[in-house]
Amino acid sequence: MQSREIIDTHARIKEYIHNTPILTSSSIDEIAGTNLFFKCENFQKTGSFKIRGAFNALLQLKEKQRVENVVTNSSGNFGQALSYAASALNINAYIVMPSTASQVKKDAVIGYGATIIESEPTLEARESTTRGIVDRKSAIYVHPSNDYNVILGQGTVSKELLENVADLNCIVSPVGGGGLIAGNALAAHYFGVNCEMIGAEPYEVDDAYRSLKSGKIEGNATTNTIADGLRTQLGHINFPIIQQHVKRIIRVEEHEIVDAMRLIWERMKIIVEPSSAVTLAAILKEKETFEDKKVGVILSGGNVDLKKLPF
Amino acid sequence: MQSREIIDTHARIKEYIHNTPILTSSSIDEIAGTNLFFKCENFQKTGSFKIRGAFNALLQLKEKQRVENVVTNSSGNFGQALSYAASALNINAYIVMPSTASQVKKDAVIGYGATIIESEPTLEARESTTRGIVDRKSAIYVHPSNDYNVILGQGTVSKELLENVADLNCIVSPVGGGGLIAGNALAAHYFGVNCEMIGAEPYEVDDAYRSLKSGKIEGNATTNTIADGLRTQLGHINFPIIQQHVKRIIRVEEHEIVDAMRLIWERMKIIVEPSSAVTLAAILKEKETFEDKKVGVILSGGNVDLKKLPF
Repeated sequence: MQSREIIDTHARIKEYIHNTPILTSSSIDEIAGTNLFFKCENFQKTGSFKIRGAFNALLQLKEKQRVENVVTNSSGNFGQALSYAASALNINAYIVMPSTASQVKKDAVIGYGATIIESEPTLEARESTTRGIVDRKSAIYVHPSNDYNVILGQGTVSKELLENVADLNCIVSPVGGGGLIAGNALAAHYFGVNCEMIGAEPYEVDDAYRSLKSGKIEGNATTNTIADGLRTQLGHINFPIIQQHVKRIIRVEEHEIVDAMRLIWERMKIIVEPSSAVTLAAILKEKETFEDKKVGVILSGGNVDLKKLPF
Repeated sequence: MQSREIIDTHARIKEYIHNTPILTSSSIDEIAGTNLFFKCENFQKTGSFKIRGAFNALLQLKEKQRVENVVTNSSGNFGQALSYAASALNINAYIVMPSTASQVKKDAVIGYGATIIESEPTLEARESTTRGIVDRKSAIYVHPSNDYNVILGQGTVSKELLENVADLNCIVSPVGGGGLIAGNALAAHYFGVNCEMIGAEPYEVDDAYRSLKSGKIEGNATTNTIADGLRTQLGHINFPIIQQHVKRIIRVEEHEIVDAMRLIWERMKIIVEPSSAVTLAAILKEKETFEDKKVGVILSGGNVDLKKLPF
């Protein structure tokens, strides 16, 4: 039973994560013509929802075996999350990052106590470096999004949301690698009442939109979007869940993402990253879809480089 | 009885304001070596604490007389606050602003429904323009900080803070025109238990620090600080309260304000203006004063121009 699995997951990770606040904004509601409930994972430990899946994956591993070393391939929020969670559970984490990753991202991973393994910035080089760590360190590989325990962990976002606002008509989630939306689509299905899961994705990396159309996992020819958390593609574990439980993905332009991000910063006085603002951009783009409804909005994270803002 | 007055004030304005959240940050606590409780007035209506005093002043006026028009002289947060409060109470507000004020500030005042009266940017011109509105429109003048009802309104910040964290050893407040720190010094005195009020002020506009030394209200020769809310000087109503209840003012450098602001943005994922960050800058500057204490920190507002950030 998947509903039971999400409940067990939440019980398992609860003590390690924040039950993040749900904020509202009367001025953004007025602009959008609807009622928005922002689930603020930007206030989560390590600045994003990724910590939920990371803790669940590691705790599940530890239940079954002795875990000394883990490795993941992520220059972004999952790398930070796995570093933090591993450190809290006395596990060594190796984070494979491209040599081109910003110092700010490297510093965060080091600050949480993990070891960075640099690789050439190509997909092939990163994967082979990761395999090398699996072999040499007997490290267990944890995928940032295409891992069932990670997916279940991310689903606790909407479980908490629906525990506070039971009658949401829909929940809007960004779509990147697919772990967040898959887990939350399950939670919306099991814990909501006719609560629809809607995806939000940049046109520039609309692989999930195209995958739902074609029925197979599509890639992105380029990844030229400001929403750097959404540049990856779906995986074989999360895609079937998304096919079953996500009916619609709304695509948005880059300038719409920046405008929505500025609106959240200015009106709500909170810092969200571009990948989070994609949700509000989608809501503002298709106002008629959300008119007078009760809408959950997943603000997935707040890790931005303040020296490189798009305003 | 001043404690009774603050209690009555809170009851009067409660329905019009947010009881803003109190946030903590384990990573900033670690850096500062103390326990900080951030009172987030950046999440307050109109983006700053000023709305508290504005509502109290207008509601008190309305109790005594028919009020059609009010006027203030403020290009900053009090202008926005009075605009909002007047509009909510069906009063016309005239906001005297220098012709040099930024469009972002003008737009906010207009958005809240007030009328902007432009004047030459000198102190004399602004005051004479304000007097002109008092005469021509029979408008009642409301001072942004040197008004007893405004002071009482601002004091409700620390009343709420102490209702949630009763055993604070001290509260740190920015010092600008003196309304905020005076009201909160009263609240700390009456509702805290040996709760000391400490001021934080930029070296560039350290008029309050010098006023406490000299025993009379001092001015600033220049106002070259990034903390634009703190460029004004004390007034004859709030100064005696400050003399009685504020023992210390800590002065900070401009770069310390920017560093503290960046720390709050990066670690807490919330937007505060430079005038708010002066408090954390003071705490980090004099760590020994705050070591292992429980410290209330007034984050006074979050109105910044995202196009002009100091990072």
